[in-house]
Amino acid sequence: MHLRKILMVIATFASLNVWATKPLPDKVPVPADNPMSTQKIELGKMLFFDPRLSMDGTISCNSCHNVMFHGGDGRPVGAGIHGQRGGRGSPTVWNSAFYTVQFWDGRAASLEEQAKGPVTNSVEMGMTSHDLVIERVRQIPGYIAAFKKAFPKEKNPVTTLNLTRALATYERTLVTPNAPFDKYMKGNKKALNPQQIRGWKLVQEIGCTSCHAGEIFAGEGFKMGEGNFQPFPQIPGSKYDKMYDILADKGRYEVTKKDEDKNVWRVPTWRNVAITAPYFHNGKVKTLDEAVRVMAKTQLDADLNDAQVADIVAFLNSLTGEFPKQTMPVLPATPNFSITPDP
Amino acid sequence: MHLRKILMVIATFASLNVWATKPLPDKVPVPADNPMSTQKIELGKMLFFDPRLSMDGTISCNSCHNVMFHGGDGRPVGAGIHGQRGGRGSPTVWNSAFYTVQFWDGRAASLEEQAKGPVTNSVEMGMTSHDLVIERVRQIPGYIAAFKKAFPKEKNPVTTLNLTRALATYERTLVTPNAPFDKYMKGNKKALNPQQIRGWKLVQEIGCTSCHAGEIFAGEGFKMGEGNFQPFPQIPGSKYDKMYDILADKGRYEVTKKDEDKNVWRVPTWRNVAITAPYFHNGKVKTLDEAVRVMAKTQLDADLNDAQVADIVAFLNSLTGEFPKQTMPVLPATPNFSITPDP
Repeated sequence: MHLRKILMVIATFASLNVWATKPLPDKVPVPADNPMSTQKIELGKMLFFDPRLSMDGTISCNSCHNVMFHGGDGRPVGAGIHGQRGGRGSPTVWNSAFYTVQFWDGRAASLEEQAKGPVTNSVEMGMTSHDLVIERVRQIPGYIAAFKKAFPKEKNPVTTLNLTRALATYERTLVTPNAPFDKYMKGNKKALNPQQIRGWKLVQEIGCTSCHAGEIFAGEGFKMGEGNFQPFPQIPGSKYDKMYDILADKGRYEVTKKDEDKNVWRVPTWRNVAITAPYFHNGKVKTLDEAVRVMAKTQLDADLNDAQVADIVAFLNSLTGEFPKQTMPVLPATPNFSITPDP
Repeated sequence: MHLRKILMVIATFASLNVWATKPLPDKVPVPADNPMSTQKIELGKMLFFDPRLSMDGTISCNSCHNVMFHGGDGRPVGAGIHGQRGGRGSPTVWNSAFYTVQFWDGRAASLEEQAKGPVTNSVEMGMTSHDLVIERVRQIPGYIAAFKKAFPKEKNPVTTLNLTRALATYERTLVTPNAPFDKYMKGNKKALNPQQIRGWKLVQEIGCTSCHAGEIFAGEGFKMGEGNFQPFPQIPGSKYDKMYDILADKGRYEVTKKDEDKNVWRVPTWRNVAITAPYFHNGKVKTLDEAVRVMAKTQLDADLNDAQVADIVAFLNSLTGEFPKQTMPVLPATPNFSITPDP
């Protein structure tokens, strides 16, 4: 097994800490052409929560990436307008600023690019065009004012580009610092209990951290726009392929149509993984211990015993961060009329 | 026309200010058996935002009574699980504490009673029983702790009754003070402009305030649990009955099955009416000026000219209050597993 040999080598490197793992940084990467500002954050937050960005006024970004519910939705797959279901789970928006590519298949190179997707996806927010989104936003006086404040140098700031910039800017504020693991890495050796430390050693020894490295455990050393893509399963043929229907969705292949991208996915973060069940692209695995077993087997051909699984789960629980308090936005009105069409 | 005569008498009384209208009070009515507490408010807020109280994890109280969007949803009718639509619009939750009965048809005597309804309504949140709700809540460690804090004297506080008490307690914090009209009534004569003052006089003269009286303009002098019920249309036969399908929903008759309750409704508040379009029980009227025309004709047989409509709309805009800043709740997790069932 060619792949398996490569993995063993990777695992060895991993246990030598070639891929160092760091605490979550205080600052997120910010693109030069979209600097942070309070006005942009406030605008982005309003847009993020606004169901009028969906065709029938039922779905906002927050419906699936619920920032009050750890950034996901707790459901196997996303839910869109008219009760439609997507094919994949909703990745948590918290700490998404640290990802170098966005979406399960990494098809967006930035948060700005990502933000364009769901709005016009027919099974998500279902707007028939981005122009229609802008047309609707322009009917809301409070948004016109807020766009002007957020983009003060532009004459006509209400554009799709600026809408995505504001959304991305808000999303860059969604960071969960001070997980027990971060405290541990910064020197507080009591921040992890002995079981969590055993789990931390184990994920390095068996090779999980060859992919789950870096500040959000989603890859180390990748530039923005460059994805940490890996096959899932690495080693096809385990009982889990069928049990959880792992192979049905071809992942990155659907983007590139290249054979080598079949069942290839962006490596997802471990940050807050304990509180963002269910697991994997199709959400078919409901518990973290089963997710650990599946990963160990399908990616590293490792059969873990119950104690090992428990140790790793304990360690993963040390990656639950603090969710900073946020104020709710007040969505701007359209005084004296409604812009939401009939269903 | 018997009714018309009665109305004229009522209108006369109204213009004599028999039904005084007051600024919004600082304090809401609170039932003796459910006193306010910070812990109950915090718990109620979490529950209000939690989509796990719906069958498939897609709908929370806030989905239709969106506190960030002036307490409603901007849609003609509410939307529930599986893309289902209700038959009536979602009344704003802001200032609902001042209503003496709840729901369009007044079928609940309190906010506590109201809170029980949508959770198990098959086209809203769709839970198959209140026991299932409690079973689910009991799987969430953070809720068990929060219920204990909110109801410290009870051994097993996670009950349907306490869930509705917490929700109602949170809702009692949703008050929008300091509307221009309130400032005007408290002595600031510049808080209303001349057009708004004309509108204010007009609604008294033509008789709107015979029903739309009191602090939230939904009735004056009613005790908690006692409804201000009125037929809509008062005077059937106008073009609007068909145009907006006013008669299709029998309103309070569906609750009491009494003939005199056919097309009878709770008088809705005017507070924030300018920013809570669309209008009426079926949400078929999309603009406030048309809503004013419809009401004048169907309730008072008055044909208003455009200037009168504009004056009344200007006045109604003076009833838009301030929406106090709120912090977002952090919904408690179920660490290491998901409790949301497949759709």
